[in-house]
Amino acid sequence: MITETNVLDKVNFPSDLKSLSFEEMNLLAQEMRELIIKKVNATGGHMSPNLGIVEATIAMHYVFDTPKDKIIFDVSHQCYPHKILTGRKSGFTNPDEYWTYTGYTAPEESEYDLFKVGHTSTAASLACGVAKARDLKGENYNVIALVGDGSLTGGEALEGIDNGAILGSNIIMIINDNDMSIAENHGGICSNLKLLRDTNGAAECNFFKALGYDYYYVADGNDIKQLVETFNKVKDTDHPVLVHICTQKGKGLKPAEENKEMFHWIMPNTLDENNEIAKIDAQPQESYTSITKDFFLNKLSQDKTLCVINAATPGVFGFTPDYRAKLGKNYTDVGICEEHETAYASALAKMGAKPFLCIMSSFVQRTYDQMSQDLCLNNSPLTILVYWGGISSADATHLCSFDISLLSNIPNLVYLAPTNKEEYIGMLEFAYKQNEYPIAIRVPTIELTSVGIADTTDYSILNKFKLAESGEQIAIIGAGNFFNLAKEVKEAIKNKFNINATLINPVYLTGVDEELLNSLKSNHKIVITLEDGQLDGGFGEKITRFYGTSDMKVINYGATKEFPDRVPLDELYAKYRLTKDAILEDIGKLL
Amino acid sequence: MITETNVLDKVNFPSDLKSLSFEEMNLLAQEMRELIIKKVNATGGHMSPNLGIVEATIAMHYVFDTPKDKIIFDVSHQCYPHKILTGRKSGFTNPDEYWTYTGYTAPEESEYDLFKVGHTSTAASLACGVAKARDLKGENYNVIALVGDGSLTGGEALEGIDNGAILGSNIIMIINDNDMSIAENHGGICSNLKLLRDTNGAAECNFFKALGYDYYYVADGNDIKQLVETFNKVKDTDHPVLVHICTQKGKGLKPAEENKEMFHWIMPNTLDENNEIAKIDAQPQESYTSITKDFFLNKLSQDKTLCVINAATPGVFGFTPDYRAKLGKNYTDVGICEEHETAYASALAKMGAKPFLCIMSSFVQRTYDQMSQDLCLNNSPLTILVYWGGISSADATHLCSFDISLLSNIPNLVYLAPTNKEEYIGMLEFAYKQNEYPIAIRVPTIELTSVGIADTTDYSILNKFKLAESGEQIAIIGAGNFFNLAKEVKEAIKNKFNINATLINPVYLTGVDEELLNSLKSNHKIVITLEDGQLDGGFGEKITRFYGTSDMKVINYGATKEFPDRVPLDELYAKYRLTKDAILEDIGKLL
Repeated sequence: MITETNVLDKVNFPSDLKSLSFEEMNLLAQEMRELIIKKVNATGGHMSPNLGIVEATIAMHYVFDTPKDKIIFDVSHQCYPHKILTGRKSGFTNPDEYWTYTGYTAPEESEYDLFKVGHTSTAASLACGVAKARDLKGENYNVIALVGDGSLTGGEALEGIDNGAILGSNIIMIINDNDMSIAENHGGICSNLKLLRDTNGAAECNFFKALGYDYYYVADGNDIKQLVETFNKVKDTDHPVLVHICTQKGKGLKPAEENKEMFHWIMPNTLDENNEIAKIDAQPQESYTSITKDFFLNKLSQDKTLCVINAATPGVFGFTPDYRAKLGKNYTDVGICEEHETAYASALAKMGAKPFLCIMSSFVQRTYDQMSQDLCLNNSPLTILVYWGGISSADATHLCSFDISLLSNIPNLVYLAPTNKEEYIGMLEFAYKQNEYPIAIRVPTIELTSVGIADTTDYSILNKFKLAESGEQIAIIGAGNFFNLAKEVKEAIKNKFNINATLINPVYLTGVDEELLNSLKSNHKIVITLEDGQLDGGFGEKITRFYGTSDMKVINYGATKEFPDRVPLDELYAKYRLTKDAILEDIGKLL
Repeated sequence: MITETNVLDKVNFPSDLKSLSFEEMNLLAQEMRELIIKKVNATGGHMSPNLGIVEATIAMHYVFDTPKDKIIFDVSHQCYPHKILTGRKSGFTNPDEYWTYTGYTAPEESEYDLFKVGHTSTAASLACGVAKARDLKGENYNVIALVGDGSLTGGEALEGIDNGAILGSNIIMIINDNDMSIAENHGGICSNLKLLRDTNGAAECNFFKALGYDYYYVADGNDIKQLVETFNKVKDTDHPVLVHICTQKGKGLKPAEENKEMFHWIMPNTLDENNEIAKIDAQPQESYTSITKDFFLNKLSQDKTLCVINAATPGVFGFTPDYRAKLGKNYTDVGICEEHETAYASALAKMGAKPFLCIMSSFVQRTYDQMSQDLCLNNSPLTILVYWGGISSADATHLCSFDISLLSNIPNLVYLAPTNKEEYIGMLEFAYKQNEYPIAIRVPTIELTSVGIADTTDYSILNKFKLAESGEQIAIIGAGNFFNLAKEVKEAIKNKFNINATLINPVYLTGVDEELLNSLKSNHKIVITLEDGQLDGGFGEKITRFYGTSDMKVINYGATKEFPDRVPLDELYAKYRLTKDAILEDIGKLL
């Protein structure tokens, strides 16, 4: 007799699936779904993508012989069911182990995970490489790429699918079509996915067939039997095949089925005990996010050329469906394609419109060439708002500590780091009005602080640092998020060494204020720089280079060049000596 | 009566085309073609792409009302006919003005050029932005993107075409299908282009229709009449249309028609007086290119997992068709898609094959996210060979001075800068054998120098600089290409100041040799760094940061953060103080 819990109890690895009946696998899916709902609601994480892919994951592991056969997850935020089935169930059943495994595939965790993947659209290309290596080595196994949940529109995915079609040997592209990106889908491809859904995969005009794929369609991608039948057909294929499976995002959790975007990624305790949406705490009255949103609406009321642009992550910027409706045609979500996003926004700016490109720090690097060529070489007066920039305890795939090193070294770009509310508004206004150069603003991640006085700085005087407090012997240059730390350090220096240190807000991350830095030489012997990002290639090194031939001693504080993986912030700060005490100790040695 | 020259004589701007007959336009095409052949053979440049697009350019300017209507060129190396027709004819008729205009669209030259474009695949996205700006501003004109000559396979192009399909208003994508990239085409899309050519555009399975475009087909894209008829049909469209035109690359020049790849971009005087291929000078016996090619063939004879990879620019690496045939299935040209290229190569390395990814410095930035995420985060033991890295007199769109700043700041990557033949071979061998980390090697651009002794350095001891000559007071760290300059500076210091300076070959661009740098403190007071690339974010700043709190004076030499446009190298060196005399002067001030 099958009870509600005993299927999952006996499944720890894919080999345990092989003897199950469809009935048992359906029960297993139900049990896995309950587990995912409970765990994700406790820790936060990707809810809907994983609820949608439960059956396909079971079917893949049932049909294919992993780990000999290789499954490569795109984005890999859809890997929770895969983790449950590949030796990591305890990370979902045992609350003490809820944090043991990452939310992405991770080779260090399991031989079933091939790559550490967090940014989207990579699976097809990686699968091509795996398959080519297999062929060169004369080996024999199936290579499966699970692409989807919006990532199909990314350039890397399109390039990879295009190249996979001509591989000439076994490669199986599974397109998980859930009719969604993180928010709604965008782009012409989606119309073809719809046509294929509407025709049960039979339409002649078929994006994937056009590329040369042997195409298979699974109408219900949450039906294990349908999936298994199709996967069995394509298993051990000797040529590239593509299986288009239609899944339901958020499947099996009513609030998620009804609120797909909201449940793409949730905060802990979004659900109450009855698996209904918990009462939401009132939003804080004012934040850098709310200020930005108000700024856009205000400008839009006077300027119909304003255009707010993002690439499929509206939630990062607080762009709720209601808010997006208010922006109307002045809002563009390009889908997951940051390269197009930058070029598109640059052209808007070049033609006299007022685009604001909103992007999470971690994704800036997805469009470096366009930032350099389409934008900065053309000197388009675009404004980029960089969100979440800073050292963080994030997964190694979603670090936000590289944007300064990336952006501050592109010619023509002006990268601004505000330190309080009024400064941020002043910079937004400046960026909006000017027509001279591309501007990026690093939206603070620290708590909103207000100085109570409107900022009237003329930011067109490039690289003019703000001398916040004039002192002597030691100058502290605290950029953006770390200006507050700089203030604390100044205070501590006063207390410990009885020195009235100089406090500087550099404002600009893309250049140095030679006049101010030169003036410090007369009565300062130590300059310290604080930046919330990687030291290598960052802002502080520009200061140090400036002082290279002087007697000034310079210490740069920031992150070491590395990929920390979910390391608590206080540990990172301690390691990087980004604490008041460590900085005082270093200064003490120099005095 | 129409004579052979008098059509071009009376055409200076698109308005001059409007009254021409088809017969006259055909003559004009012939005259323009002759002009292009003569000019390009004199200066070098993109021959075949421009010969192929003459008629389409005439037809576009005949039908559309430029500059009110906007034509956006992809890659823009196909813009020579456009330049002839938009006020810049003298750049082709007058040898004294052969160098006046760039080989790419350039807004500073003409109101007919919207963007400065050199890297490929940008037109569709830029056109989307132009069209959106038009719509937001309530203006009314045609927006035309000319995509093609291989750039269709690039992620940015695919993203842009996907998004253009849902623009909802006037946008005209012209796909120039010449059945070629720079070399032969690759990828599944090409099979659909062939199907469409074979069916005169009638095949139901249509990549572009799948995206939602209203599709038009022009069988002979070198027939002005066919082009004009179709362009007239789509002019003033109220929805996205796509015109697929089939052109002949190299049209009208027999050697170019027969050798499409060779004539994509030619050196000066490739043709003799009879427009036949001139006798080619014997290749120099040995070069970094030939060493690399020999290395690959040698390894391949013992190791069938070797894989040589590039993205559509085999000529840069000397990979002739003959040579590619020798590599056989161990050679992959992915087409123009650097993102796929990196992920693909990383996966090959991860699975135990031995991929070597060959890339031109200027294009490294096209795949930054994949270098960071797919490659370095996964620590795949891939070898990247970076060609042409260094300060150059190139067009602003093809600068090669950013790769150090880009690559040296990605965690896990080891970036090596060889200074002579034996070192280069030693590094290739090391990179081939090791399985620990991703390695990049900056292939020298300087003349091959041999030290005559095989290099036995153990490069697995990371960041161990080579102390070439031990001295005192001044240490010169000369990276890669600039090690020779460092040697000259050392000699000059001896002569001028009678100081025996220390000479260091840093080898690694991604870290510092703390032990060696510390040891210099005892008997040196000046360190100078020389790197053939941008200072901001570069190698030298790492050295300066290391010495930040010491008494060492450090001067970093390299390129200023800027986009110089075809500035002669000696001018750049003078500006950046990258000359022996300037460096001596700077040192003199510090002594």
